[in-house]
Amino acid sequence: MSQGILGYLADEVGYPFNQIPTKMGWAYRGGIYSWGSICGALPPAIDLIGLVTDLDTGQKLINELMAWYKDFPFPAYPGDGTPLPTTVADSSLCHVSVTKWMQVANVPREDKTRSERCGRLTADVTKFTVEMLNSLSDNKFEAKHKPSAVVGECMACHSKLSYAHGKETCTACHGDPHK
Amino acid sequence: MSQGILGYLADEVGYPFNQIPTKMGWAYRGGIYSWGSICGALPPAIDLIGLVTDLDTGQKLINELMAWYKDFPFPAYPGDGTPLPTTVADSSLCHVSVTKWMQVANVPREDKTRSERCGRLTADVTKFTVEMLNSLSDNKFEAKHKPSAVVGECMACHSKLSYAHGKETCTACHGDPHK
Repeated sequence: MSQGILGYLADEVGYPFNQIPTKMGWAYRGGIYSWGSICGALPPAIDLIGLVTDLDTGQKLINELMAWYKDFPFPAYPGDGTPLPTTVADSSLCHVSVTKWMQVANVPREDKTRSERCGRLTADVTKFTVEMLNSLSDNKFEAKHKPSAVVGECMACHSKLSYAHGKETCTACHGDPHK
Repeated sequence: MSQGILGYLADEVGYPFNQIPTKMGWAYRGGIYSWGSICGALPPAIDLIGLVTDLDTGQKLINELMAWYKDFPFPAYPGDGTPLPTTVADSSLCHVSVTKWMQVANVPREDKTRSERCGRLTADVTKFTVEMLNSLSDNKFEAKHKPSAVVGECMACHSKLSYAHGKETCTACHGDPHK
């Protein structure tokens, strides 16, 4: 992911992008060295947006990236051309995103289509990030994606109690705890 | 967090650290602009480790950082000196880490001790990261923390099915689904 955006800018533009080693983003694979935490395509995209925008603009783009990621049927990038199923992660977490896809594809972790799928997803995130930055550069950026609607419903009560913030689909992990 | 490590290096060492704007890490606050995803202290620490180590060494340090984070009773840094309760997050997620603390502290989100707690946690992560890098520099780095033991138990079966990897405490979010 770092290579896809930062590496491209280092090659094409040079300074200052060539001052930041793209290996900075390598650790995020497998949701941080197989910890299964945040999807490894996201932090390098977030870093890059932060590098080239002011804070207010960056916030709009990064909110759009997060909202789009949870809703997008990955992967769309054709890669080597082999047809692959698509799934909506409804989460920013690697292990959720990958498990949902593997269960539809019915493959184990070590299957090569699993790594192909994650490679294509990374291309999708790269493309979306670059498209956002290009539309921003043309003064045409417009946010189209939103936090999960259920957040408002849950937070109507939970924000009055000792619960933290969030914008993802609470029920995707928590189910409906009031049933 | 970026300011705490990268900003310090930019001020003290200068080039090449002063080539990377610390605003790159700003987006991670609130688990990426209040999405509640990964704790915002982690990606800037991971980025920094990736910048100054080779990939194999970085992997050891980042695994140690992730394993330590889930087990550490935050916050330890004294901050302004006000006593604060401590909690173990057992997760890399912002909303889990923060909610556990708020429930013990019995405060709502907007309470100023909540932001004080997250500031102190960030100082703790900065200190731990710098200590790891210093011990590496002295050829004394030794990993002491581990992925959750329950991962091995869960993955004994789940790795044979269509489930993704992970190293955090599966049961912290999933309970025991076989009960």
